Amino acid sequence: MAECLAPVRAKGMEKIMKIAYTIKEVREQVKAWRKEGLTVGLVPTMGYLHEGHASLMKKAVEENDRVVTSVFLNPTQFGPSEDLEAYPRDFEQDCRLCDSLGVSMVFHPEPEEMYAPDFCTWVNMEVLSSTLCGKSRSTHFRGVCTVVSKLFNIVTPDRAYFGQKDAQQLAIIRRMVRDLNMDIEIVGCPIVREEDGLAKSSRNTYLNEEERKAALVLSQSIFLGEKMVKEGETDAAKIKAAMTARIESEPLARIDYVEIVDGLSMQPVDTMQSPALAAIAVYIGKTRLIDNFII
Amino acid sequence: MAECLAPVRAKGMEKIMKIAYTIKEVREQVKAWRKEGLTVGLVPTMGYLHEGHASLMKKAVEENDRVVTSVFLNPTQFGPSEDLEAYPRDFEQDCRLCDSLGVSMVFHPEPEEMYAPDFCTWVNMEVLSSTLCGKSRSTHFRGVCTVVSKLFNIVTPDRAYFGQKDAQQLAIIRRMVRDLNMDIEIVGCPIVREEDGLAKSSRNTYLNEEERKAALVLSQSIFLGEKMVKEGETDAAKIKAAMTARIESEPLARIDYVEIVDGLSMQPVDTMQSPALAAIAVYIGKTRLIDNFII
Repeated sequence: MAECLAPVRAKGMEKIMKIAYTIKEVREQVKAWRKEGLTVGLVPTMGYLHEGHASLMKKAVEENDRVVTSVFLNPTQFGPSEDLEAYPRDFEQDCRLCDSLGVSMVFHPEPEEMYAPDFCTWVNMEVLSSTLCGKSRSTHFRGVCTVVSKLFNIVTPDRAYFGQKDAQQLAIIRRMVRDLNMDIEIVGCPIVREEDGLAKSSRNTYLNEEERKAALVLSQSIFLGEKMVKEGETDAAKIKAAMTARIESEPLARIDYVEIVDGLSMQPVDTMQSPALAAIAVYIGKTRLIDNFII
Repeated sequence: MAECLAPVRAKGMEKIMKIAYTIKEVREQVKAWRKEGLTVGLVPTMGYLHEGHASLMKKAVEENDRVVTSVFLNPTQFGPSEDLEAYPRDFEQDCRLCDSLGVSMVFHPEPEEMYAPDFCTWVNMEVLSSTLCGKSRSTHFRGVCTVVSKLFNIVTPDRAYFGQKDAQQLAIIRRMVRDLNMDIEIVGCPIVREEDGLAKSSRNTYLNEEERKAALVLSQSIFLGEKMVKEGETDAAKIKAAMTARIESEPLARIDYVEIVDGLSMQPVDTMQSPALAAIAVYIGKTRLIDNFII
């Protein structure tokens, strides 16, 4: 692990990190913390943690007395033809990382603990979910909103931490929290990149050597767009065209989308003005990767 | 008001009932109560309170240190051709009743306080919402689940109280609480009836003298079904047929549905065995009334 993962213990933390497998265990622990007047941060993850997740946990440990990291590969946010089965897992390594960062509890439920056989309640959002990733992954954000609602109700955190890399997810969760009056502060954290620019992602592990090189076209396209905006370009179509051309220059890349949208509504805009989001999704071979920048 | 509405003060209650119009006020009050270690009950209503609501509030006052009654005519649970505009209101009388029963706070928000213009997050349930009232009121339970989720997040009660008269609503809310891991006990309370049997409802006020008499056919049909079950009848089709015939004997009555369903899944059953629900919806003139019994 890189040096940026050096241990940062939670304030007043005395005990070794707990691993909870049931909702009941989590509730009891959080209630005990609440009785002591401690604040609680939540970092929801699907596991196979990387430095992007580490940055969320470090921030959470800084800002809260106790931190819960959930490691749950949520089946309801995967489509039937998506990569649920293939998704990488390494729970032992995840726990080592969480412990080294001062996380107080890892919540690692089985799918059966989270979803009863006759589960049928969904939290959904039409407007913000219909563009970008929601176009090709039609029930994805319904699964995300639902599992995040469940985790919020189980952990009842003061703050919850999400990466800016999943920009649409972050916007959707902020909207859900506002619309449903959840009393939780949502903290967004910047994208963490490899040294060569590729955004950190658990899915990067799918890439072979050749694809790994080709995948650089994502961050290069993002940096190009950022540069154009910095230099004064405000025409979304021009920025989109340049970013698209950059991606198309790579034979292994196949574009899912290149879009510039309003940062709150996720609806396409013509002019690049704050808050705007430039977001891309690109297949490198069979691996779908995303990246973005915000203004 | 009948004698059963005699004041029952909440334990340790010293102050006069508060009326809160904003979410912020409610949150602050509930947090202050929580600091004192007090328990909180919630009775969600649409106002124009009758003895059915009173029975919920009395139970809530008995079981909790503080009780919040919400009086909010929720627009999202009314269809475009339904009776939102005509729905009866009398907030002053509602407050008098709440105060007399020992309610600590009435939450009475404007629709704008509850729904931002770009509100777009919904809590929904397909299976349990597709039968009975969900058939003729397609977005009704989506509105109910969403507003109840919001109220739960605003008030964060230990317990919430709902009438058995809206049996499908009660089953749906129980399921929502289970599926989304809301840490709230749902308390169902029996149907309260007029002396002649008609189930109490704010909508009874729509009935003219002739219709009021005709409306008795609902409870008569319910009592007939109950009697058949008590006498050993288990064939749902026979019970349904007898109940239907009873309603059809009244010229002013028009059946929306007469159904016997499983008490948890709300799906039709052939045999009357626990937990089952016999539910009816009948138009008396233009007024749609419901009634039910459970086994």
